[in-house]
Amino acid sequence: MEEEILIKAQDKENKNEILLYLLKNKGNYVSGEELSEKLKVTRTAIWKQINGFKKLGYEIDSVPRLGYCLKNSPDLFIPEEIWKDDNIKFLGSKIYYFDTIGSTNEKAKILALEGAPHGTLVLSEKQTKGKGRLGRKWESPDKQGIWLSIILRPSLTPEEAPKITLMTAVACAKAIREQGVNCAIKWPNDILYKEKKLAGILTEISAEMDKINHVVVGIGINVNTKSFPEELEDIATSLYLIKNEYIERVPLLLTFLKGFELYYSELEKGNFSEVLKEWKNLNCTLGRKVRIIGKNFEVEGEACDIDEFGALLIKKDDGTFERILSGDVSLR
Amino acid sequence: MEEEILIKAQDKENKNEILLYLLKNKGNYVSGEELSEKLKVTRTAIWKQINGFKKLGYEIDSVPRLGYCLKNSPDLFIPEEIWKDDNIKFLGSKIYYFDTIGSTNEKAKILALEGAPHGTLVLSEKQTKGKGRLGRKWESPDKQGIWLSIILRPSLTPEEAPKITLMTAVACAKAIREQGVNCAIKWPNDILYKEKKLAGILTEISAEMDKINHVVVGIGINVNTKSFPEELEDIATSLYLIKNEYIERVPLLLTFLKGFELYYSELEKGNFSEVLKEWKNLNCTLGRKVRIIGKNFEVEGEACDIDEFGALLIKKDDGTFERILSGDVSLR
Repeated sequence: MEEEILIKAQDKENKNEILLYLLKNKGNYVSGEELSEKLKVTRTAIWKQINGFKKLGYEIDSVPRLGYCLKNSPDLFIPEEIWKDDNIKFLGSKIYYFDTIGSTNEKAKILALEGAPHGTLVLSEKQTKGKGRLGRKWESPDKQGIWLSIILRPSLTPEEAPKITLMTAVACAKAIREQGVNCAIKWPNDILYKEKKLAGILTEISAEMDKINHVVVGIGINVNTKSFPEELEDIATSLYLIKNEYIERVPLLLTFLKGFELYYSELEKGNFSEVLKEWKNLNCTLGRKVRIIGKNFEVEGEACDIDEFGALLIKKDDGTFERILSGDVSLR
Repeated sequence: MEEEILIKAQDKENKNEILLYLLKNKGNYVSGEELSEKLKVTRTAIWKQINGFKKLGYEIDSVPRLGYCLKNSPDLFIPEEIWKDDNIKFLGSKIYYFDTIGSTNEKAKILALEGAPHGTLVLSEKQTKGKGRLGRKWESPDKQGIWLSIILRPSLTPEEAPKITLMTAVACAKAIREQGVNCAIKWPNDILYKEKKLAGILTEISAEMDKINHVVVGIGINVNTKSFPEELEDIATSLYLIKNEYIERVPLLLTFLKGFELYYSELEKGNFSEVLKEWKNLNCTLGRKVRIIGKNFEVEGEACDIDEFGALLIKKDDGTFERILSGDVSLR
């Protein structure tokens, strides 16, 4: 079995109200009395919990008469860091937060079978067997990125599943662009900056022939990775390497989750064309000469368009078109 | 959690050689000495094990000087009952045999994620939450049927998964026909006798966009069911009700597994047209007036053909054709 260190598995209903209150009032003093009254807990219980938060890395000032003030957060994926954002609705209905795991997607698939609800998040500070498409390795060093899987129970048919990859890519690229990094989407599942991989998406489904049981969307974003193994140096990058500064992960995650909910709701409402329009604005594949290597084929030509099912349309040199559902794309 | 009573979980390599020897020599005496020499175990160990088999329901005579003779088997899905058949190659590489389980498919999906090998079988004498397509209930009373799930790791794309349902239906219908019961396949996943359900197939996949991780094929065959709940009386039947006699389940299972391996190997070799030909010979859907109710549609017309992906082609009354991937079919 993989090494697996769970920090917390919690339903949103059971969130820690004290930590939440401090997070929502970050930088301001809240009195022990106020906390005690609002949250109906004794002041001793509060004091004990505050000490617990400090051990997690929260900097909390306590000043007699003034109360407690959260000065600094440790930038860890402690569930309340997500729950503090009231604009996030269904994502994080339940959160599994690991210190170490083999792969968040593998874990999420098991949790989904065991009944984890729609919107469950699986986060880990480190993955020992992080993976990309077709079982390829995804470097997931400790506390340097966002290694996340989302469990969804959409009312889509299996053929529609690629829509979720496209939608996730849009949310991911937009969140990264808000950091001032001009990334682009490479079909089908990568986010690139100057042709180097900054983030990747791995969508996996469990389905009957005409019904999706559940979807697990895995997202890996290289945030503060300072160096890559030699064989990845030329093809991978991180926000840290691009901006030459440390990037806080939690705000980036929250932006991504809000974007994800927005585009997912478009998808649910049947407005996939809106998502597709965004995707086309953000992509670096269409209009380019590409070579695609798939399971039993190889195609070269111009990437002309993607259709409503997420398939890529290739205009070959002989003028004929081909519709590609998936494969490895190299931009020429 | 579901009630779950495991009888045995065993790899084929660890099969019980003594039981296997007795099974292969059913009706004949084998001396303790012979067993002891062949299998390199002491005669005391053999004697102890024989007593264990008796407790499982095996009738074993022991006669001084002659040795042991297996007279009668309990017709249970004890793994060696499958392993005794040397014509079965990869099915049963590992066997999970339950007394009681929620659903063999649900269990198989978890076992597959945990790494269960290609060909793993999950059998249960009883399912408390047996299920058919779209989460519908499948009655699975104790020791009265074959409630089986097969874990496969095929090199197929997700679009090809319906081929496995068709292939399984062929193997299932053929095994039942060898019992002298003239059943037929109703698209997409039922085996009928005189319009009543005798068996059903539920194929579930775990997949990336372009690669199947694994397939779980669930098969339920109503063998000795003596009565159905009132609401099913008009739509379900069993071999017992048809033939008015008790049917041994183990030989039926072995016939099915051998057929499954045969057609699966055709599929792997790319000879799906062979399977399709058999399917067409055994089906009761093509050429009939049908109504199909799917997720977001309803179609009426004549079922003309199925294509290489297992989709049904319907000729509507206005003369146009429609290609249906799945849905509920009522024969008109």
